[in-house]
Amino acid sequence: MAVSTKPAREKVVALAGGVGGAKLAAGLQAALPTGCLTVIVNTGDDFEHWGLHVCPDLDTVLYNLAGLNNPEMGWGRQDEAWTVLGEMERYGGENWFRIGDRDLALHLRRTEWLRMGLSLTEVTDRLRRLLGVPSAILPMCNEAVRTLVHTEEGDMPFQHYFVRRRCEPSLVDLSFVGAESATLSPEVRKALNSADLVVFCPSNPYVSIDPILSVPGLRDLLRHSKTPKLAVSPIVNGQALKGPAAKMMRELGEMSSPLTVLDHLGDVLDGFVIDRADAELSDAVILPALVTGTIMNDLPSKERLAQDILAFAATLRTAPVPSAAD
Amino acid sequence: MAVSTKPAREKVVALAGGVGGAKLAAGLQAALPTGCLTVIVNTGDDFEHWGLHVCPDLDTVLYNLAGLNNPEMGWGRQDEAWTVLGEMERYGGENWFRIGDRDLALHLRRTEWLRMGLSLTEVTDRLRRLLGVPSAILPMCNEAVRTLVHTEEGDMPFQHYFVRRRCEPSLVDLSFVGAESATLSPEVRKALNSADLVVFCPSNPYVSIDPILSVPGLRDLLRHSKTPKLAVSPIVNGQALKGPAAKMMRELGEMSSPLTVLDHLGDVLDGFVIDRADAELSDAVILPALVTGTIMNDLPSKERLAQDILAFAATLRTAPVPSAAD
Repeated sequence: MAVSTKPAREKVVALAGGVGGAKLAAGLQAALPTGCLTVIVNTGDDFEHWGLHVCPDLDTVLYNLAGLNNPEMGWGRQDEAWTVLGEMERYGGENWFRIGDRDLALHLRRTEWLRMGLSLTEVTDRLRRLLGVPSAILPMCNEAVRTLVHTEEGDMPFQHYFVRRRCEPSLVDLSFVGAESATLSPEVRKALNSADLVVFCPSNPYVSIDPILSVPGLRDLLRHSKTPKLAVSPIVNGQALKGPAAKMMRELGEMSSPLTVLDHLGDVLDGFVIDRADAELSDAVILPALVTGTIMNDLPSKERLAQDILAFAATLRTAPVPSAAD
Repeated sequence: MAVSTKPAREKVVALAGGVGGAKLAAGLQAALPTGCLTVIVNTGDDFEHWGLHVCPDLDTVLYNLAGLNNPEMGWGRQDEAWTVLGEMERYGGENWFRIGDRDLALHLRRTEWLRMGLSLTEVTDRLRRLLGVPSAILPMCNEAVRTLVHTEEGDMPFQHYFVRRRCEPSLVDLSFVGAESATLSPEVRKALNSADLVVFCPSNPYVSIDPILSVPGLRDLLRHSKTPKLAVSPIVNGQALKGPAAKMMRELGEMSSPLTVLDHLGDVLDGFVIDRADAELSDAVILPALVTGTIMNDLPSKERLAQDILAFAATLRTAPVPSAAD
């Protein structure tokens, strides 16, 4: 007999990169009781710009969960203004990474706090509280781990590849510089240990999820945890909904397919969510699979996907989960 | 026989603080051939705000000489916007010192360059060139010298006294922290050694001129120089045209009078300029005196005062100058 073991206040941890991750995080926040969501966010994209500490993925998650995100641009703030950027151009400042005036204030405040000695975890928590976000938002670690993109045109920091070069150089490999010195923060460890469900958001597996998994101890903690862990494919119908995931797969000699995502992350997963457009692949998924609509255009579609995921997770708890090796 | 010794391209050095100094500097720039003016500016007011290196007097001079200053506020930029300040308030950032969006870009760029290892002199020169300013603008030194205001309510950094407390606490004394470790920069030394005239702008003698004179070697260099040195009184008819100079004089037990300025700076001066409103004091001035209109409301009045000063300086060169001790 199937007995629901879903707790009254299920604690969900989402692992997220930028836009796609932030969308599902917003859906989960809407679907869950207040305070039940923790989002662990990639910081491999972080970099210094205009002398300030910029955390693109943390900010995208923060702005989405605060309802302040700019849905047209996919990043940055609503009702943004650009006076400072125009002046920075006058002073010969770099302008390939566009920081708006509202967005800038957050980078200023974060940099000020980091220079005072606060950790990135503490700073991020202050910011999300100030923006009225009820969910916990955790950087994957406090140490600097930086995604270095090895391309046929040489190595480049992630934002140079992603924004300055618009992902044009052909990918050869990736490394996460500093990962060997990073540590699992107490907050990340506690969130994962007390989670009732871990959701890998539909984020780029190579440059959003892998940096998170590169933090020493994190991948092992997930593999040994009995908590259901499932991933939502960021590839739909052979394409990435946003960003260079599909292009990267092809350049790495892989199919741009949900199965490539599954192959990449499968050892830590108990379930996999694919879009209806890929329904014919469900038989090839070696884990319990949910086929549903994964395209999130508005808050109702985000929340619906979140509810589908929560219901799917409940079924994983009620049945013995076959291991990926079965 | 009086023979004019005025060179074809007279080199003028102006010592300046904020608004009054910047106005006369703009007049001198308009009156002199291009490239003949060097302004040495007080940096005792500099401080860190929002994690950025802010130089209020340097910026006021820079904006005035670039024609970008805000004449209504007396500080900051024309056509200013305030988006970032509003957002900083959202994040609990300090808002008592109002940094506008256009102004902010300059602080960002300067801070970025200083952190790269450039000196404040180099940074300031880059900025003035980028803003098309034809005059040299030199910080009084590259080291941090900070004006500390000793008041009846305790000691406070200058901007806290000046902006945050609106000069309300009663002045007891002033000190220039770090002055003993400062050095005359090669650029300041060269400018003073090659000057044909040194003008003390109508700036606050205690908190604009004294910090400049506190740089070791600067006062001696001026005293031993044969170059005519004259000051324009910042006190007119018992009042400071701008700022707390008159209030400070009273609190220090002095008359708020041009004669108090002369008494304070007289040992390095060869001539003194007072306003027509104080014409009756001219007999009490122990140096050659020029009585003229010193109130500068627009560029023509700034340029006219500059021309009067240049003509007065020419008369000082043609006649033996009585020393202050005569």
